[in-house]
Amino acid sequence: MSAPLSAAERLARLRLARSDTVGPVTFRDLLQHFPNAVEALDALPSLAARGGRKTALRIPSRAEAEREIAATEKLGARLIVFGEPDFPRRLAAVDPAPPVISVLGSLHLAERPAIALVGSRNASAAGAKLAATIAHDLGQRGYTTVSGLARGIDAAAHKASLSTGTIGVVAGGLDVVYPEENRALQLEIAECGALVSEMPPGTRPQARHFPRRNRLISGLSLGVVVVEAAMRSGSLITARFALEQGRDVFAVPGSPLDPRARGSNSLIKDGAALVESADDIVAALAQAPMLPFSEPDSSRYGAASGPTPEPDGATRKLVLSALGPTPVPVDEILRQTGASLPVIRMILLELDLAGRLHRDPGDRVSFLPEDGF
Amino acid sequence: MSAPLSAAERLARLRLARSDTVGPVTFRDLLQHFPNAVEALDALPSLAARGGRKTALRIPSRAEAEREIAATEKLGARLIVFGEPDFPRRLAAVDPAPPVISVLGSLHLAERPAIALVGSRNASAAGAKLAATIAHDLGQRGYTTVSGLARGIDAAAHKASLSTGTIGVVAGGLDVVYPEENRALQLEIAECGALVSEMPPGTRPQARHFPRRNRLISGLSLGVVVVEAAMRSGSLITARFALEQGRDVFAVPGSPLDPRARGSNSLIKDGAALVESADDIVAALAQAPMLPFSEPDSSRYGAASGPTPEPDGATRKLVLSALGPTPVPVDEILRQTGASLPVIRMILLELDLAGRLHRDPGDRVSFLPEDGF
Repeated sequence: MSAPLSAAERLARLRLARSDTVGPVTFRDLLQHFPNAVEALDALPSLAARGGRKTALRIPSRAEAEREIAATEKLGARLIVFGEPDFPRRLAAVDPAPPVISVLGSLHLAERPAIALVGSRNASAAGAKLAATIAHDLGQRGYTTVSGLARGIDAAAHKASLSTGTIGVVAGGLDVVYPEENRALQLEIAECGALVSEMPPGTRPQARHFPRRNRLISGLSLGVVVVEAAMRSGSLITARFALEQGRDVFAVPGSPLDPRARGSNSLIKDGAALVESADDIVAALAQAPMLPFSEPDSSRYGAASGPTPEPDGATRKLVLSALGPTPVPVDEILRQTGASLPVIRMILLELDLAGRLHRDPGDRVSFLPEDGF
Repeated sequence: MSAPLSAAERLARLRLARSDTVGPVTFRDLLQHFPNAVEALDALPSLAARGGRKTALRIPSRAEAEREIAATEKLGARLIVFGEPDFPRRLAAVDPAPPVISVLGSLHLAERPAIALVGSRNASAAGAKLAATIAHDLGQRGYTTVSGLARGIDAAAHKASLSTGTIGVVAGGLDVVYPEENRALQLEIAECGALVSEMPPGTRPQARHFPRRNRLISGLSLGVVVVEAAMRSGSLITARFALEQGRDVFAVPGSPLDPRARGSNSLIKDGAALVESADDIVAALAQAPMLPFSEPDSSRYGAASGPTPEPDGATRKLVLSALGPTPVPVDEILRQTGASLPVIRMILLELDLAGRLHRDPGDRVSFLPEDGF
């Protein structure tokens, strides 16, 4: 288990995570380039300026960060920063890991074997029944279930596993009920299970928060079961995150005539395991023995091996010229420019903090056109 | 294309195929051990006697075989013996191939790309609709559909592809309608498509005929689509034959709550491709390009390379001692006895003709206990 973080480092990590334009990738890269978050935080304004930022970067003050911690604790919840000893191990193994989570309820549920059940909000009665049966049976076999507290499949899965262990991941703050019809359920999960969020208390969930919630759902789990899902639904996004994170994807099939089965059937076509019951899931997990999830890896984050790279103007120009509105792999930039990877990553970090870089899947980046460039 | 068979050889092959205890395996082995069917037929009584047969082996006379050919032709159908130039190529590639088939209708449909659609007799309305849609769309794309003329899925598939090309494989004789409710359909298929049977005219279908019909269905096809199928249903037997024959297996999924989907879902679990439409099937076939089906292979059958092996008493005793009521692989007999493979196969053939051998899947054999042995 990693050593506890100092109070100063913990606070610095929280402030870093809540700074403008800092998402999980930037957070990870900063902790790879700097010896610790305290120094990264100090460097933030100059990095953003070097990246071409014209307005000041909003960095929460120490007092603001302390207020968030206090507000979280007032809810009876805990704020856990990446790198702390009890950051859930499976979630810490996700790359990039969520920088900060808060948890209300039984944190230990996240350390048991856990399976996510997700699916359509407009579930059929049969779909909801299946989700409930699978969640119940998984609970009987010692598995925690994880879901997103949405209507339909999510709610059915949570309800059926309240007594055995369920984790509800919310897109907004822990104290914000959404959707309203699941108010009682959200309170019950906080009571008997665990609620997890990546957002500060009081955050109202917005469309852009849901993919990050879905990434938490899969990240907390050994595998994701999609019960009923239309094409282009959020459940398929969760399944894609699971694949990226090296987790198993399972799908419950349905008739091709049922539009609610399109997404789950298409997952099976693409290689997901067809499951009809908890036993199928347990058997599939036994066939592909779970990877040993490493402890939060302090060598990966927060312990830069060499000095912080300082790109010169010529290299920065070279890297900029390799970027455009079409996503390009970082490897390709490496090949084109001949610069070293740490230097390239630092330049990308600067552009990112300046709000001029877009991170695309598969370690690709694109450049946001800007006036005056 | 192989050379036409002489009239004498054709008749001998038919008589061989219709002799007591001669199934496709024995037929194949006889044609591998003897230069031709005429000589194999001559040797049959003595082989059976050497195997320990106590009663005479029933071999149809020349006149009986001629009467079967005449009766088949009177129906407007053709009797085709394995090795004849227009024996359907995909069926000839099956090992062991059916020794004799009769065809009423458009034989050329068997040479086009063909897909079998099979499923539950007690199909749901949705299942029948799916089968019809898939069969219709496959027809539009130039595929022949093959099925077993049963109620439910089979009938729906045939009806939807009558105008584009459908092959109905029947378990009894071509002139025997079964089931009665498909009388009109059977006549229409004879008219617009093709009816195929392995049995002589007038044969009433019995339970033991259906597995052979299923083996013909898969053997005529590039792949088998299972639309709705309960566990332990005939459709799963057809799927198993398809696998043994190196053909593709496709299954249409359904809700785990629908017992009619159990069989097809279990096929997908075991590796069958999930399909929802004709396009899915065509795409899957394109990914796994079809094997070049060889012409009826005259080097494989009907052209023994060396002299017919004549086992001596000591070796026969040795092989008998290696056999018991538990199926044993022929390879294991080879290892245990040290006898040559042709000699072992000849001894097994004798026992088979004597009605004392049982052939099991995977080239394994067991010995039927008998009084006086």
